[in-house]
Amino acid sequence: MILCKTVAELRAELAIARNEGRTIGLVPTMGALHEGHASLIRAANMENDLVVVSVFVNPTQFGPNEDLDSYPRTLEADCLIAEREGADIVFAPTAKEMYPSEDMTWVEVTGGITNVLCGRSRPTHFRGVTTVVSKLFNLAQPDRAYFGQKDAQQVQVLAKMVKDLFFNLQLRIMPIVREADGLAKSSRNTYLSPEERRAALILSRSLKEAEKLFAAGERDGKKLAEFTEELIKTEPMADIDYVEIYRMPDLSECSGPLEGAGLLAVAVRFGKTRLIDNLVLEVK
Amino acid sequence: MILCKTVAELRAELAIARNEGRTIGLVPTMGALHEGHASLIRAANMENDLVVVSVFVNPTQFGPNEDLDSYPRTLEADCLIAEREGADIVFAPTAKEMYPSEDMTWVEVTGGITNVLCGRSRPTHFRGVTTVVSKLFNLAQPDRAYFGQKDAQQVQVLAKMVKDLFFNLQLRIMPIVREADGLAKSSRNTYLSPEERRAALILSRSLKEAEKLFAAGERDGKKLAEFTEELIKTEPMADIDYVEIYRMPDLSECSGPLEGAGLLAVAVRFGKTRLIDNLVLEVK
Repeated sequence: MILCKTVAELRAELAIARNEGRTIGLVPTMGALHEGHASLIRAANMENDLVVVSVFVNPTQFGPNEDLDSYPRTLEADCLIAEREGADIVFAPTAKEMYPSEDMTWVEVTGGITNVLCGRSRPTHFRGVTTVVSKLFNLAQPDRAYFGQKDAQQVQVLAKMVKDLFFNLQLRIMPIVREADGLAKSSRNTYLSPEERRAALILSRSLKEAEKLFAAGERDGKKLAEFTEELIKTEPMADIDYVEIYRMPDLSECSGPLEGAGLLAVAVRFGKTRLIDNLVLEVK
Repeated sequence: MILCKTVAELRAELAIARNEGRTIGLVPTMGALHEGHASLIRAANMENDLVVVSVFVNPTQFGPNEDLDSYPRTLEADCLIAEREGADIVFAPTAKEMYPSEDMTWVEVTGGITNVLCGRSRPTHFRGVTTVVSKLFNLAQPDRAYFGQKDAQQVQVLAKMVKDLFFNLQLRIMPIVREADGLAKSSRNTYLSPEERRAALILSRSLKEAEKLFAAGERDGKKLAEFTEELIKTEPMADIDYVEIYRMPDLSECSGPLEGAGLLAVAVRFGKTRLIDNLVLEVK
Protein backbone atom coordinates (compact mmCIF):
# COMPACT_ATOMS: atom_id res chain seq x y z
CA MET A 1 0.00 0.00 0.00
CA ILE A 2 1.16 3.50 -0.86
CA LEU A 3 0.72 6.60 1.33
CA CYS A 4 0.33 9.78 -0.75
CA LYS A 5 0.55 13.09 1.09
CA THR A 6 0.34 15.42 -1.88
CA VAL A 7 -2.04 15.96 -4.75
CA ALA A 8 0.85 15.52 -7.19
CA GLU A 9 1.78 12.10 -5.78
CA LEU A 10 -1.81 10.89 -5.90
CA ARG A 11 -2.26 12.16 -9.45
CA ALA A 12 0.90 10.39 -10.61
CA GLU A 13 -0.20 7.07 -9.07
CA LEU A 14 -3.70 7.30 -10.51
CA ALA A 15 -2.54 8.32 -13.99
CA ILE A 16 -0.71 4.99 -14.20
CA ALA A 17 -3.73 3.02 -13.02
CA ARG A 18 -6.03 4.88 -15.42
CA ASN A 19 -3.70 4.24 -18.36
CA GLU A 20 -3.81 0.55 -17.53
CA GLY A 21 -7.60 0.71 -17.66
CA ARG A 22 -7.98 -0.22 -13.99
CA THR A 23 -11.24 0.72 -12.26
CA ILE A 24 -10.93 2.99 -9.22
CA GLY A 25 -12.91 2.87 -5.98
CA LEU A 26 -12.74 5.90 -3.67
CA VAL A 27 -13.51 5.83 0.07
CA PRO A 28 -13.48 9.40 1.44
CA THR A 29 -12.98 9.47 5.23
CA MET A 30 -11.90 11.81 7.99
CA GLY A 31 -9.73 9.04 9.42
CA ALA A 32 -10.15 7.51 12.90
CA LEU A 33 -11.19 4.48 10.91
CA HIS A 34 -13.54 1.98 12.54
CA GLU A 35 -15.51 -1.04 11.43
CA GLY A 36 -17.92 1.19 9.49
CA HIS A 37 -15.11 2.53 7.31
CA ALA A 38 -13.65 -0.97 7.05
CA SER A 39 -16.90 -2.17 5.51
CA LEU A 40 -16.67 0.59 2.88
CA ILE A 41 -13.08 -0.31 2.01
CA ARG A 42 -13.98 -4.00 1.74
CA ALA A 43 -16.85 -3.21 -0.62
CA ALA A 44 -14.58 -0.95 -2.70
CA ASN A 45 -11.99 -3.70 -2.83
CA MET A 46 -14.52 -6.23 -4.12
CA GLU A 47 -15.88 -3.94 -6.84
CA ASN A 48 -12.78 -2.15 -8.18
CA ASP A 49 -9.24 -2.86 -9.34
CA LEU A 50 -7.72 -0.12 -7.24
CA VAL A 51 -8.92 1.36 -3.93
CA VAL A 52 -8.07 4.85 -2.71
CA VAL A 53 -8.91 5.74 0.91
CA SER A 54 -8.65 9.44 1.67
CA VAL A 55 -7.95 10.47 5.26
CA PHE A 56 -8.57 14.17 5.71
CA VAL A 57 -10.17 16.01 8.61
CA ASN A 58 -11.84 18.62 6.43
CA PRO A 59 -11.84 22.00 8.21
CA THR A 60 -14.56 23.54 6.03
CA GLN A 61 -17.24 21.14 7.24
CA PHE A 62 -16.75 22.09 10.90
CA GLY A 63 -18.54 25.08 12.38
CA PRO A 64 -16.69 27.65 14.53
CA ASN A 65 -17.63 25.99 17.84
CA GLU A 66 -17.33 22.40 16.74
CA ASP A 67 -14.71 19.72 17.37
CA LEU A 68 -12.22 20.35 14.54
CA ASP A 69 -9.25 20.58 16.91
CA SER A 70 -10.19 17.61 19.08
CA TYR A 71 -11.32 15.35 16.23
CA PRO A 72 -9.25 12.13 16.53
CA ARG A 73 -6.23 11.92 14.22
CA THR A 74 -4.79 8.41 14.04
CA LEU A 75 -3.08 8.15 10.65
CA GLU A 76 -0.77 5.25 11.52
CA ALA A 77 -3.60 3.08 12.79
CA ASP A 78 -5.74 4.18 9.82
CA CYS A 79 -3.08 3.02 7.37
CA LEU A 80 -2.94 -0.40 9.04
CA ILE A 81 -6.72 -0.80 8.82
CA ALA A 82 -6.84 0.47 5.23
CA GLU A 83 -4.11 -1.94 4.16
CA ARG A 84 -5.72 -4.86 6.00
CA GLU A 85 -9.03 -4.21 4.21
CA GLY A 86 -7.42 -4.05 0.78
CA ALA A 87 -6.71 -0.37 0.07
CA ASP A 88 -3.99 0.31 -2.49
CA ILE A 89 -3.49 3.99 -1.71
CA VAL A 90 -4.10 6.10 1.38
CA PHE A 91 -4.30 9.78 0.47
CA ALA A 92 -3.62 11.92 3.56
CA PRO A 93 -3.09 15.54 2.49
CA THR A 94 -2.62 18.64 4.63
CA ALA A 95 -5.31 21.34 4.71
CA LYS A 96 -2.98 23.62 2.71
CA GLU A 97 -2.70 20.91 0.05
CA MET A 98 -6.48 20.55 -0.26
CA TYR A 99 -7.19 24.30 -0.02
CA PRO A 100 -4.34 25.97 -1.91
CA SER A 101 -6.08 29.37 -2.26
CA GLU A 102 -7.23 31.79 0.42
CA ASP A 103 -10.30 32.70 -1.61
CA MET A 104 -12.45 29.59 -1.76
CA THR A 105 -14.15 27.87 -4.63
CA TRP A 106 -17.30 26.36 -3.14
CA VAL A 107 -19.54 23.59 -4.37
CA GLU A 108 -22.93 24.01 -2.73
CA VAL A 109 -26.16 22.06 -2.92
CA THR A 110 -29.04 24.40 -2.13
CA GLY A 111 -32.68 23.87 -1.20
CA GLY A 112 -34.52 21.94 1.48
CA ILE A 113 -32.21 18.96 1.35
CA THR A 114 -29.38 20.98 2.94
CA ASN A 115 -31.57 23.15 5.19
CA VAL A 116 -33.20 20.48 7.35
CA LEU A 117 -31.73 18.16 10.03
CA CYS A 118 -27.96 18.67 10.39
CA GLY A 119 -28.10 21.47 7.81
CA ARG A 120 -30.16 23.53 10.27
CA SER A 121 -27.90 23.04 13.29
CA ARG A 122 -24.70 23.10 11.19
CA PRO A 123 -25.45 25.72 8.48
CA THR A 124 -22.08 25.57 6.65
CA HIS A 125 -21.48 21.85 7.15
CA PHE A 126 -22.74 20.44 3.86
CA ARG A 127 -21.09 23.16 1.80
CA GLY A 128 -17.81 21.96 3.29
CA VAL A 129 -18.67 18.34 2.57
CA THR A 130 -19.71 18.87 -1.05
CA THR A 131 -16.68 21.07 -1.70
CA VAL A 132 -14.14 18.59 -0.37
CA VAL A 133 -15.87 15.61 -1.95
CA SER A 134 -15.91 17.40 -5.32
CA LYS A 135 -12.17 17.93 -5.00
CA LEU A 136 -11.65 14.25 -4.16
CA PHE A 137 -13.90 13.17 -7.03
CA ASN A 138 -11.94 15.32 -9.49
CA LEU A 139 -8.62 14.08 -8.15
CA ALA A 140 -9.44 10.40 -8.11
CA GLN A 141 -11.99 10.33 -10.96
CA PRO A 142 -13.30 7.11 -9.42
CA ASP A 143 -15.68 4.64 -11.01
CA ARG A 144 -17.36 4.20 -7.63
CA ALA A 145 -17.33 6.20 -4.40
CA TYR A 146 -18.31 4.70 -1.03
CA PHE A 147 -20.20 6.36 1.82
CA GLY A 148 -21.98 5.06 4.89
CA GLN A 149 -25.73 5.32 5.45
CA LYS A 150 -24.87 6.41 9.01
CA ASP A 151 -24.54 9.94 7.56
CA ALA A 152 -27.95 9.67 5.91
CA GLN A 153 -28.38 13.32 4.98
CA GLN A 154 -24.82 13.59 3.67
CA VAL A 155 -25.53 10.65 1.39
CA GLN A 156 -28.68 12.28 -0.04
CA VAL A 157 -26.91 15.63 -0.49
CA LEU A 158 -24.02 13.93 -2.28
CA ALA A 159 -26.43 11.96 -4.46
CA LYS A 160 -28.04 15.24 -5.49
CA MET A 161 -24.65 16.79 -6.19
CA VAL A 162 -23.59 13.82 -8.33
CA LYS A 163 -26.84 14.03 -10.28
CA ASP A 164 -26.85 17.82 -10.69
CA LEU A 165 -23.18 18.18 -11.62
CA PHE A 166 -23.06 14.99 -13.72
CA PHE A 167 -20.17 13.38 -11.87
CA ASN A 168 -19.35 10.30 -13.91
CA LEU A 169 -19.35 7.76 -11.06
CA GLN A 170 -21.55 5.50 -9.05
CA LEU A 171 -22.35 6.37 -5.42
CA ARG A 172 -22.32 3.21 -3.32
CA ILE A 173 -24.11 3.56 0.01
CA MET A 174 -23.26 0.96 2.63
CA PRO A 175 -25.42 0.01 5.64
CA ILE A 176 -24.80 1.35 9.15
CA VAL A 177 -22.36 -0.79 11.14
CA ARG A 178 -23.22 -1.06 14.83
CA GLU A 179 -21.54 -2.17 18.04
CA ALA A 180 -22.83 -5.46 19.48
CA ASP A 181 -25.19 -3.48 21.75
CA GLY A 182 -26.60 -1.42 18.88
CA LEU A 183 -24.70 1.89 19.07
CA ALA A 184 -23.90 3.08 15.54
CA LYS A 185 -20.12 3.08 14.95
CA SER A 186 -18.71 6.61 14.88
CA SER A 187 -15.29 8.17 15.28
CA ARG A 188 -16.93 10.48 17.81
CA ASN A 189 -17.91 7.56 20.09
CA THR A 190 -14.39 7.78 21.55
CA TYR A 191 -15.40 11.11 23.13
CA LEU A 192 -18.06 9.42 25.31
CA SER A 193 -17.55 8.74 29.03
CA PRO A 194 -18.62 5.24 30.13
CA GLU A 195 -21.84 6.74 31.49
CA GLU A 196 -22.58 8.65 28.26
CA ARG A 197 -21.72 5.54 26.26
CA ARG A 198 -24.43 3.59 28.14
CA ALA A 199 -26.94 6.43 27.80
CA ALA A 200 -26.30 6.71 24.03
CA LEU A 201 -27.86 3.28 23.53
CA ILE A 202 -31.22 5.01 23.72
CA LEU A 203 -30.78 6.09 20.07
CA SER A 204 -30.57 2.66 18.45
CA ARG A 205 -33.12 1.24 20.90
CA SER A 206 -35.68 3.95 20.14
CA LEU A 207 -35.18 3.62 16.39
CA LYS A 208 -35.65 -0.14 16.74
CA GLU A 209 -38.95 0.43 18.55
CA ALA A 210 -40.04 2.86 15.82
CA GLU A 211 -39.20 0.23 13.24
CA LYS A 212 -41.45 -2.24 15.07
CA LEU A 213 -44.28 0.29 15.18
CA PHE A 214 -43.83 0.88 11.43
CA ALA A 215 -43.76 -2.89 10.79
CA ALA A 216 -47.03 -3.14 12.75
CA GLY A 217 -48.62 -0.78 10.23
CA GLU A 218 -48.10 2.77 11.51
CA ARG A 219 -47.72 5.00 8.46
CA ASP A 220 -48.08 8.44 10.04
CA GLY A 221 -44.60 10.00 9.82
CA LYS A 222 -45.29 12.59 12.50
CA LYS A 223 -46.44 9.91 14.94
CA LEU A 224 -43.40 7.76 14.27
CA ALA A 225 -41.09 10.72 14.95
CA GLU A 226 -42.99 11.74 18.11
CA PHE A 227 -42.96 8.16 19.36
CA THR A 228 -39.17 8.03 18.87
CA GLU A 229 -38.67 11.40 20.54
CA GLU A 230 -40.69 10.35 23.60
CA LEU A 231 -38.57 7.23 23.96
CA ILE A 232 -35.31 9.19 23.70
CA LYS A 233 -36.58 11.63 26.31
CA THR A 234 -36.79 8.77 28.83
CA GLU A 235 -32.97 8.97 28.96
CA PRO A 236 -32.11 11.93 31.23
CA MET A 237 -28.63 12.40 29.68
CA ALA A 238 -30.03 12.75 26.16
CA ASP A 239 -30.04 16.39 24.95
CA ILE A 240 -32.05 16.28 21.72
CA ASP A 241 -31.01 18.35 18.68
CA TYR A 242 -33.63 16.84 16.38
CA VAL A 243 -35.85 13.79 15.92
CA GLU A 244 -37.48 14.19 12.52
CA ILE A 245 -38.81 12.35 9.55
CA TYR A 246 -38.53 13.40 5.90
CA ARG A 247 -39.31 11.90 2.53
CA MET A 248 -36.48 10.25 0.61
CA PRO A 249 -34.59 11.15 -1.47
CA ASP A 250 -35.19 14.92 -1.42
CA LEU A 251 -35.79 15.24 2.34
CA SER A 252 -39.02 17.13 1.74
CA GLU A 253 -41.66 17.52 4.45
CA CYS A 254 -43.46 14.35 5.39
CA SER A 255 -47.11 15.32 5.84
CA GLY A 256 -49.84 12.73 5.66
CA PRO A 257 -49.15 9.01 5.48
CA LEU A 258 -45.69 7.82 4.43
CA GLU A 259 -45.27 6.86 0.78
CA GLY A 260 -42.15 5.56 -0.92
CA ALA A 261 -39.35 5.82 1.60
CA GLY A 262 -38.99 7.97 4.70
CA LEU A 263 -35.90 8.87 6.67
CA LEU A 264 -36.31 8.93 10.44
CA ALA A 265 -33.21 10.74 11.67
CA VAL A 266 -31.99 11.73 15.12
CA ALA A 267 -29.21 13.95 16.47
CA VAL A 268 -28.70 13.96 20.22
CA ARG A 269 -26.00 15.31 22.54
CA PHE A 270 -24.59 13.25 25.36
CA GLY A 271 -22.41 15.64 27.32
CA LYS A 272 -20.41 17.49 24.70
CA THR A 273 -20.71 14.75 22.13
CA ARG A 274 -23.30 15.01 19.38
CA LEU A 275 -24.31 11.66 17.91
CA ILE A 276 -26.52 10.90 14.92
CA ASP A 277 -28.42 7.78 13.90
CA ASN A 278 -31.22 7.01 11.47
CA LEU A 279 -33.66 4.52 10.06
CA VAL A 280 -35.01 4.24 6.52
CA LEU A 281 -38.68 3.23 6.41
CA GLU A 282 -39.65 1.76 3.07
CA VAL A 283 -43.33 1.46 2.24
CA LYS A 284 -43.72 -1.59 0.02
CA MET B 1 -20.11 14.40 -36.87
CA ILE B 2 -22.68 13.44 -34.26
CA LEU B 3 -25.26 15.75 -32.70
CA CYS B 4 -26.09 14.75 -29.09
CA LYS B 5 -29.08 16.43 -27.49
CA THR B 6 -29.12 14.53 -24.20
CA VAL B 7 -26.64 13.85 -21.43
CA ALA B 8 -27.21 10.12 -21.89
CA GLU B 9 -26.31 10.22 -25.60
CA LEU B 10 -23.16 12.23 -24.93
CA ARG B 11 -22.12 9.90 -22.12
CA ALA B 12 -22.59 6.84 -24.32
CA GLU B 13 -20.47 8.32 -27.11
CA LEU B 14 -17.70 9.41 -24.77
CA ALA B 15 -17.59 6.11 -22.88
CA ILE B 16 -16.64 4.42 -26.15
CA ALA B 17 -13.93 6.99 -26.91
CA ARG B 18 -12.54 6.76 -23.39
CA ASN B 19 -12.42 2.97 -23.52
CA GLU B 20 -10.41 3.26 -26.71
CA GLY B 21 -7.98 5.54 -24.89
CA ARG B 22 -8.72 8.50 -27.15
CA THR B 23 -7.94 11.97 -25.81
CA ILE B 24 -10.85 14.40 -25.59
CA GLY B 25 -10.89 18.12 -26.31
CA LEU B 26 -13.88 20.16 -25.11
CA VAL B 27 -14.94 23.51 -26.57
CA PRO B 28 -17.77 24.98 -24.44
CA THR B 29 -19.76 27.61 -26.36
CA MET B 30 -23.12 29.35 -26.29
CA GLY B 31 -23.44 28.79 -30.03
CA ALA B 32 -23.71 31.56 -32.63
CA LEU B 33 -20.29 30.33 -33.64
CA HIS B 34 -17.91 32.76 -35.31
CA GLU B 35 -14.25 32.76 -36.29
CA GLY B 36 -13.23 33.02 -32.62
CA HIS B 37 -14.96 29.73 -31.79
CA ALA B 38 -13.62 28.22 -35.01
CA SER B 39 -10.07 28.92 -33.83
CA LEU B 40 -10.82 27.06 -30.57
CA ILE B 41 -12.24 24.06 -32.43
CA ARG B 42 -9.24 23.96 -34.77
CA ALA B 43 -6.84 24.02 -31.81
CA ALA B 44 -8.81 21.25 -30.09
CA ASN B 45 -8.75 19.23 -33.28
CA MET B 46 -4.96 19.52 -33.55
CA GLU B 47 -4.33 18.50 -29.93
CA ASN B 48 -6.90 15.77 -29.26
CA ASP B 49 -8.25 12.58 -30.80
CA LEU B 50 -11.87 13.60 -30.31
CA VAL B 51 -13.43 17.06 -30.16
CA VAL B 52 -16.69 17.89 -28.39
CA VAL B 53 -18.26 21.31 -29.01
CA SER B 54 -21.05 22.17 -26.59
CA VAL B 55 -23.69 24.62 -27.77
CA PHE B 56 -25.77 25.79 -24.83
CA VAL B 57 -27.13 29.25 -24.05
CA ASN B 58 -26.70 28.91 -20.31
CA PRO B 59 -29.56 30.69 -18.50
CA THR B 60 -27.80 30.86 -15.13
CA GLN B 61 -25.09 33.18 -16.40
CA PHE B 62 -27.58 35.82 -17.57
CA GLY B 63 -28.89 38.43 -15.16
CA PRO B 64 -32.62 39.24 -14.95
CA ASN B 65 -32.40 42.20 -17.37
CA GLU B 66 -29.90 40.73 -19.77
CA ASP B 67 -30.22 39.28 -23.26
CA LEU B 68 -31.03 35.61 -22.54
CA ASP B 69 -34.13 35.63 -24.73
CA SER B 70 -32.62 37.55 -27.63
CA TYR B 71 -29.25 35.78 -27.58
CA PRO B 72 -28.74 34.36 -31.11
CA ARG B 73 -29.60 30.68 -31.52
CA THR B 74 -28.28 29.24 -34.76
CA LEU B 75 -27.78 25.52 -34.16
CA GLU B 76 -27.87 24.42 -37.80
CA ALA B 77 -25.20 26.89 -38.85
CA ASP B 78 -23.21 26.06 -35.70
CA CYS B 79 -23.18 22.38 -36.62
CA LEU B 80 -21.86 23.19 -40.09
CA ILE B 81 -19.03 25.32 -38.68
CA ALA B 82 -18.20 22.77 -35.99
CA GLU B 83 -18.03 19.97 -38.54
CA ARG B 84 -15.95 22.03 -40.95
CA GLU B 85 -13.41 22.79 -38.21
CA GLY B 86 -13.09 19.15 -37.18
CA ALA B 87 -15.54 18.59 -34.31
CA ASP B 88 -16.63 14.99 -33.76
CA ILE B 89 -19.57 15.72 -31.48
CA VAL B 90 -21.83 18.73 -31.02
CA PHE B 91 -23.59 18.59 -27.65
CA ALA B 92 -26.69 20.80 -27.71
CA PRO B 93 -28.82 20.06 -24.64
CA THR B 94 -31.97 21.80 -23.43
CA ALA B 95 -31.92 23.83 -20.22
CA LYS B 96 -33.99 21.11 -18.53
CA GLU B 97 -31.36 18.56 -19.52
CA MET B 98 -28.53 20.62 -18.03
CA TYR B 99 -30.49 21.69 -14.93
CA PRO B 100 -32.58 18.66 -13.98
CA SER B 101 -33.40 19.86 -10.43
CA GLU B 102 -35.30 22.92 -9.29
CA ASP B 103 -32.99 23.36 -6.32
CA MET B 104 -29.59 24.21 -7.72
CA THR B 105 -26.18 22.85 -7.02
CA TRP B 106 -23.80 25.78 -7.52
CA VAL B 107 -20.10 25.90 -8.15
CA GLU B 108 -18.85 29.32 -7.11
CA VAL B 109 -15.43 30.95 -7.15
CA THR B 110 -15.35 33.63 -4.44
CA GLY B 111 -13.03 36.54 -3.71
CA GLY B 112 -11.78 39.52 -5.64
CA ILE B 113 -11.38 37.64 -8.90
CA THR B 114 -15.17 37.35 -9.29
CA ASN B 115 -16.06 40.71 -7.71
CA VAL B 116 -14.26 43.08 -10.07
CA LEU B 117 -14.94 43.99 -13.74
CA CYS B 118 -17.89 41.97 -15.14
CA GLY B 119 -18.40 40.40 -11.70
CA ARG B 120 -19.40 43.81 -10.36
CA SER B 121 -21.86 44.71 -13.10
CA ARG B 122 -23.09 41.09 -13.47
CA PRO B 123 -23.06 39.75 -9.88
CA THR B 124 -24.40 36.23 -10.59
CA HIS B 125 -22.70 35.81 -13.97
CA PHE B 126 -19.58 33.90 -13.00
CA ARG B 127 -21.47 31.57 -10.66
CA GLY B 128 -23.51 30.56 -13.68
CA VAL B 129 -20.39 30.11 -15.79
CA THR B 130 -18.49 28.01 -13.25
CA THR B 131 -21.55 25.89 -12.55
CA VAL B 132 -22.25 25.05 -16.18
CA VAL B 133 -18.59 24.56 -17.03
CA SER B 134 -18.23 22.17 -14.07
CA LYS B 135 -21.14 20.18 -15.43
CA LEU B 136 -19.57 20.07 -18.89
CA PHE B 137 -16.17 19.11 -17.43
CA ASN B 138 -17.73 16.25 -15.47
CA LEU B 139 -19.71 15.08 -18.48
CA ALA B 140 -16.91 15.19 -21.01
CA GLN B 141 -13.96 14.56 -18.65
CA PRO B 142 -11.78 16.20 -21.29
CA ASP B 143 -8.00 16.15 -21.44
CA ARG B 144 -8.08 19.75 -22.61
CA ALA B 145 -10.75 22.47 -22.58
CA TYR B 146 -10.61 25.51 -24.87
CA PHE B 147 -11.64 29.09 -24.08
CA GLY B 148 -10.98 32.44 -25.74
CA GLN B 149 -8.92 35.23 -24.18
CA LYS B 150 -11.70 37.56 -25.34
CA ASP B 151 -13.49 36.64 -22.08
CA ALA B 152 -10.38 37.46 -20.06
CA GLN B 153 -11.96 37.43 -16.61
CA GLN B 154 -13.89 34.23 -17.33
CA VAL B 155 -10.62 32.56 -18.26
CA GLN B 156 -8.95 33.60 -14.98
CA VAL B 157 -11.99 32.55 -12.93
CA LEU B 158 -12.07 29.16 -14.66
CA ALA B 159 -8.32 28.74 -14.14
CA LYS B 160 -8.85 29.31 -10.43
CA MET B 161 -11.75 26.86 -10.37
CA VAL B 162 -9.68 24.20 -12.14
CA LYS B 163 -6.83 24.74 -9.67
CA ASP B 164 -9.00 24.85 -6.54
CA LEU B 165 -11.23 21.90 -7.41
CA PHE B 166 -8.43 19.83 -8.97
CA PHE B 167 -10.11 19.29 -12.32
CA ASN B 168 -7.86 16.83 -14.12
CA LEU B 169 -7.51 18.73 -17.40
CA GLN B 170 -5.54 21.41 -19.14
CA LEU B 171 -7.12 24.81 -19.79
CA ARG B 172 -6.08 26.07 -23.22
CA ILE B 173 -6.55 29.80 -23.72
CA MET B 174 -6.63 30.99 -27.32
CA PRO B 175 -5.94 34.57 -28.51
CA ILE B 176 -8.68 37.05 -29.36
CA VAL B 177 -9.81 36.82 -32.97
CA ARG B 178 -10.68 40.19 -34.53
CA GLU B 179 -12.45 41.50 -37.59
CA ALA B 180 -10.19 43.03 -40.24
CA ASP B 181 -10.86 46.49 -38.77
CA GLY B 182 -9.97 45.38 -35.21
CA LEU B 183 -13.36 44.72 -33.56
CA ALA B 184 -13.11 41.63 -31.35
CA LYS B 185 -15.32 38.83 -32.70
CA SER B 186 -18.40 38.30 -30.54
CA SER B 187 -21.77 36.67 -30.99
CA ARG B 188 -23.22 39.93 -29.66
CA ASN B 189 -21.76 41.97 -32.56
CA THR B 190 -24.83 40.93 -34.57
CA TYR B 191 -26.92 43.17 -32.29
CA LEU B 192 -25.07 46.33 -33.47
CA SER B 193 -26.58 48.80 -35.91
CA PRO B 194 -24.16 49.91 -38.67
CA GLU B 195 -23.59 53.13 -36.76
CA GLU B 196 -22.90 51.32 -33.46
CA ARG B 197 -20.66 48.87 -35.31
CA ARG B 198 -18.50 51.78 -36.51
CA ALA B 199 -18.48 53.40 -33.06
CA ALA B 200 -17.44 50.14 -31.41
CA LEU B 201 -14.08 50.30 -33.16
CA ILE B 202 -13.04 52.75 -30.45
CA LEU B 203 -12.42 49.76 -28.13
CA SER B 204 -9.74 47.98 -30.13
CA ARG B 205 -8.24 51.29 -31.27
CA SER B 206 -7.93 52.61 -27.72
CA LEU B 207 -6.42 49.37 -26.47
CA LYS B 208 -3.93 49.48 -29.32
CA GLU B 209 -2.91 53.00 -28.31
CA ALA B 210 -2.53 51.86 -24.71
CA GLU B 211 -0.32 49.04 -25.92
CA LYS B 212 1.87 51.55 -27.70
CA LEU B 213 2.12 53.69 -24.56
CA PHE B 214 3.08 50.58 -22.58
CA ALA B 215 5.65 49.60 -25.24
CA ALA B 216 7.08 53.11 -24.94
CA GLY B 217 7.76 52.44 -21.27
CA GLU B 218 4.65 53.52 -19.32
CA ARG B 219 4.34 51.13 -16.31
CA ASP B 220 1.76 53.00 -14.23
CA GLY B 221 -1.38 50.86 -14.42
CA LYS B 222 -3.70 53.67 -13.34
CA LYS B 223 -2.32 55.96 -16.05
CA LEU B 224 -2.71 53.30 -18.72
CA ALA B 225 -6.34 52.74 -17.74
CA GLU B 226 -7.10 56.49 -17.59
CA PHE B 227 -5.45 57.02 -20.94
CA THR B 228 -7.63 54.28 -22.45
CA GLU B 229 -10.76 55.65 -20.83
CA GLU B 230 -10.11 59.14 -22.17
CA LEU B 231 -9.70 57.74 -25.68
CA ILE B 232 -12.94 55.74 -25.44
CA LYS B 233 -14.77 58.85 -24.21
CA THR B 234 -13.93 60.59 -27.49
CA GLU B 235 -16.60 58.34 -29.04
CA PRO B 236 -19.99 59.91 -28.16
CA MET B 237 -21.89 56.60 -28.60
CA ALA B 238 -19.67 54.78 -26.09
CA ASP B 239 -21.40 54.29 -22.71
CA ILE B 240 -18.60 53.02 -20.45
CA ASP B 241 -19.28 50.26 -17.89
CA TYR B 242 -15.62 49.93 -16.87
CA VAL B 243 -12.08 50.59 -18.07
CA GLU B 244 -9.80 49.02 -15.49
CA ILE B 245 -6.50 47.32 -14.98
CA TYR B 246 -5.76 44.44 -12.61
CA ARG B 247 -2.87 42.14 -11.88
CA MET B 248 -2.87 38.72 -13.48
CA PRO B 249 -3.77 36.02 -12.65
CA ASP B 250 -5.74 36.87 -9.48
CA LEU B 251 -7.16 40.19 -10.69
CA SER B 252 -5.96 41.97 -7.56
CA GLU B 253 -5.64 45.76 -7.38
CA CYS B 254 -2.89 47.23 -9.50
CA SER B 255 -1.30 49.95 -7.39
CA GLY B 256 2.18 51.19 -8.13
CA PRO B 257 4.10 50.19 -11.24
CA LEU B 258 3.01 47.08 -13.17
CA GLU B 259 4.91 43.88 -12.40
CA GLY B 260 4.41 40.49 -13.99
CA ALA B 261 1.33 40.75 -16.13
CA GLY B 262 -1.57 43.16 -16.04
CA LEU B 263 -5.01 42.88 -17.59
CA LEU B 264 -6.41 46.07 -19.11
CA ALA B 265 -10.10 45.31 -19.61
CA VAL B 266 -12.99 47.34 -20.97
CA ALA B 267 -16.77 46.90 -21.06
CA VAL B 268 -18.73 49.50 -23.00
CA ARG B 269 -22.31 49.77 -24.17
CA PHE B 270 -23.21 50.84 -27.70
CA GLY B 271 -26.95 51.31 -27.69
CA LYS B 272 -28.29 48.23 -25.89
CA THR B 273 -25.26 46.09 -26.71
CA ARG B 274 -22.55 45.63 -24.12
CA LEU B 275 -19.17 44.71 -25.60
CA ILE B 276 -15.96 43.68 -23.86
CA ASP B 277 -12.36 43.71 -25.01
CA ASN B 278 -8.98 43.50 -23.28
CA LEU B 279 -5.24 43.62 -23.51
CA VAL B 280 -2.66 41.69 -21.50
CA LEU B 281 0.42 43.76 -20.67
CA GLU B 282 3.41 41.60 -19.84
CA VAL B 283 6.36 43.21 -18.11
CA LYS B 284 9.46 41.39 -19.27
